[in-house]
Amino acid sequence: NTLKAARELVHSGKCARAGRLLEHAFSLAPRHPDVLIHYGEYLEQHRNDVVQADRMYLQALAISPANSRALRNRRRTQPLVDEMDSVMLYRIDSKRDDLAQIPSSSAALRRIKKEAYFQYIYHTAGIEGNTMTLAQTRMILETRLSVGGKSVMEHNEILGLDLALKFINTTLVHRVGRISLHDILEIHRRVLGHADPLEAGQLRTTQVYVSDHVPPPPTHLQVLMEGFVDWLNSPEAQTLHPIKYAALAHYKLVFIHPFSDGNGRTARLLMNFLLMQAGYPPVIIRKQDRLLYYDCLQAANDGDTRPFMRFIAQCTEKTLDVYLWAT
Amino acid sequence: NTLKAARELVHSGKCARAGRLLEHAFSLAPRHPDVLIHYGEYLEQHRNDVVQADRMYLQALAISPANSRALRNRRRTQPLVDEMDSVMLYRIDSKRDDLAQIPSSSAALRRIKKEAYFQYIYHTAGIEGNTMTLAQTRMILETRLSVGGKSVMEHNEILGLDLALKFINTTLVHRVGRISLHDILEIHRRVLGHADPLEAGQLRTTQVYVSDHVPPPPTHLQVLMEGFVDWLNSPEAQTLHPIKYAALAHYKLVFIHPFSDGNGRTARLLMNFLLMQAGYPPVIIRKQDRLLYYDCLQAANDGDTRPFMRFIAQCTEKTLDVYLWAT
Ligand SMILES: Nc1ncnc2c1ncn2[C@@H]1O[C@H](COP(=O)(O)OP(=O)(O)OP(=O)(O)O)[C@@H](O)[C@H]1O
Ligand SMILES: Nc1ncnc2c1ncn2[C@@H]1O[C@H](COP(=O)(O)OP(=O)(O)OP(=O)(O)O)[C@@H](O)[C@H]1O
Ligand SMILES: [Mg+2]
Ligand SMILES: [Mg+2]
Repeated sequence: NTLKAARELVHSGKCARAGRLLEHAFSLAPRHPDVLIHYGEYLEQHRNDVVQADRMYLQALAISPANSRALRNRRRTQPLVDEMDSVMLYRIDSKRDDLAQIPSSSAALRRIKKEAYFQYIYHTAGIEGNTMTLAQTRMILETRLSVGGKSVMEHNEILGLDLALKFINTTLVHRVGRISLHDILEIHRRVLGHADPLEAGQLRTTQVYVSDHVPPPPTHLQVLMEGFVDWLNSPEAQTLHPIKYAALAHYKLVFIHPFSDGNGRTARLLMNFLLMQAGYPPVIIRKQDRLLYYDCLQAANDGDTRPFMRFIAQCTEKTLDVYLWAT
Repeated sequence: NTLKAARELVHSGKCARAGRLLEHAFSLAPRHPDVLIHYGEYLEQHRNDVVQADRMYLQALAISPANSRALRNRRRTQPLVDEMDSVMLYRIDSKRDDLAQIPSSSAALRRIKKEAYFQYIYHTAGIEGNTMTLAQTRMILETRLSVGGKSVMEHNEILGLDLALKFINTTLVHRVGRISLHDILEIHRRVLGHADPLEAGQLRTTQVYVSDHVPPPPTHLQVLMEGFVDWLNSPEAQTLHPIKYAALAHYKLVFIHPFSDGNGRTARLLMNFLLMQAGYPPVIIRKQDRLLYYDCLQAANDGDTRPFMRFIAQCTEKTLDVYLWAT
């Protein structure tokens, strides 16, 4: 009924109202194929948003794989979306190449790298709920002194990220060869070490929950992590575009959620390690993008990893723009 | 010459001047048997200090084992000193028994235990150089908030001691059976974990130096620690008086100095664990007794563990007096 009404509104040129109606229908029945298809068509035709439309058709097909209208629509949108994603990655890669032209001796480059280091720690701790400001984060790292009235744990989260970054920058990045489970545990040991010395560097032994996602039980972790590391080292993964590879690595790690805490911080570090190995600067996921970030991870849980990949690509591009602007 | 002059001064009744002269000789030549013997005789006869005199004769014998005058003197002092030590331990044990009479439900006992908990952490961290006051120590543990302007590490030293004490009080103390190397590593993991997650719970891999003492090289640590743990569990050790046993355990551990840092704190915790298992309250070595504490450890390195044992006995008695006074 809502769908019919919406179609009529569109026909009579009342697109804005039709859109609101369809959004409403989508929020009431986000798993109904017809709603998804109609909402997708509306997004495609009246909002020019092929990317979101394609997501809708894909979701409809996940629920009803033989739906002919969804199949037909996707035959139209998928090549377009693939092309748009390729263009975006190509643009990012050419910015990466521009950055590579700047000599590493450049004072401006060194300055922006240092600034980005503090920004990274500020945002990656902040996403998790750390309340230190950027200035406080910087002060703690530069003086090792504490900020009165903040919890000791918030300080230790900052110190842990510093320790983990130093480990990646001085040890891991220069190493060639396989990434091992041990490497990932060593990153985590540093991330969580100051704050929780007893859990740091160890797979969890209890069940955990992450909003709508229920990660695998602790007894499966060893096998799953070994599988994850095999994937990281597989030709199949390593021939992906580096941004896709890094984003998928992040997603797969938080899907498994191997640790009692610090999974997000470790996944973001691993992702940056992979990006840096491929010549990209470490990417900052900003505190203020937290909800979008979580939504993209949830979309991946629902079967579509492309939104998360695009989100990481956008973060990479933003970071590259800042570097290029500063140098 | 000095010795002769001193003897003449003693004969002519000028004991104070003789004493100064002998002290001077002792500071110039602390490893000269004659000086040691004469100084010992002076301490015995004019200061009534048989305990120190006996230490002097023992040192003279360590250098010159057949010295007949030293042997003769020791035959006189040793039984006296043994008797004095026994009397002291007997007195301490009867205070321990008095304390055991107080019901554990006593509010006063609970209060003093809690107070002693903070005092213990304050002093054991303070000995190592931590500058937190007792009030700051208490605030950190009760609120987990930081004290502005103090280093984050000083906070983490406090948190580590709290974590280790909780482990001993809730897990180790109630357990029966062997003490293992793993137990000692687990204590250390907590002591140092917050401050240095990478070294915590691990034997050191480099050489260290502790004032005049050169601990064994890192390659020997595994074997030495296994020997130490065997000793801890041996009938020979466990039939010692509990205070002697606990003090010797402390000494043996800092002699080996198995860790890169936190050896003193771990040794004091191990000692208290052994004392608590034998019904004594945990002993506080006060910040202000630091030099005496180190001197007694150095005396043990020089071959006489009794001064350290007596020092620990005195700390135990002081602690018992406070508990008994408060309840
Ligand atoms: N729906 C989801 N499915 C899978 N992973 C998710 C989902 N929502 C969030 N996450 C991930 O889980 C992380 C939180 O897990 P955890 O608390 O262990 O990590 P953290 O490092 O302590 O926190 P944070 O990542 O927020 O800093 C998020 O940062 C995100 O990466
Ligand atoms: N001459 C000595 N021989 C053996 N051990 C000693 C000597 N002097 C001091 N020590 C021990 O070494 C400890 C210091 O070692 P370390 O720094 O590893 O321990 P810590 O716990 O960090 O410091 P602290 O024990 O001072 O709190 C002293 O506390 C003391 O127990
Ligand atoms: Mg968390
Ligand atoms: Mg030390």
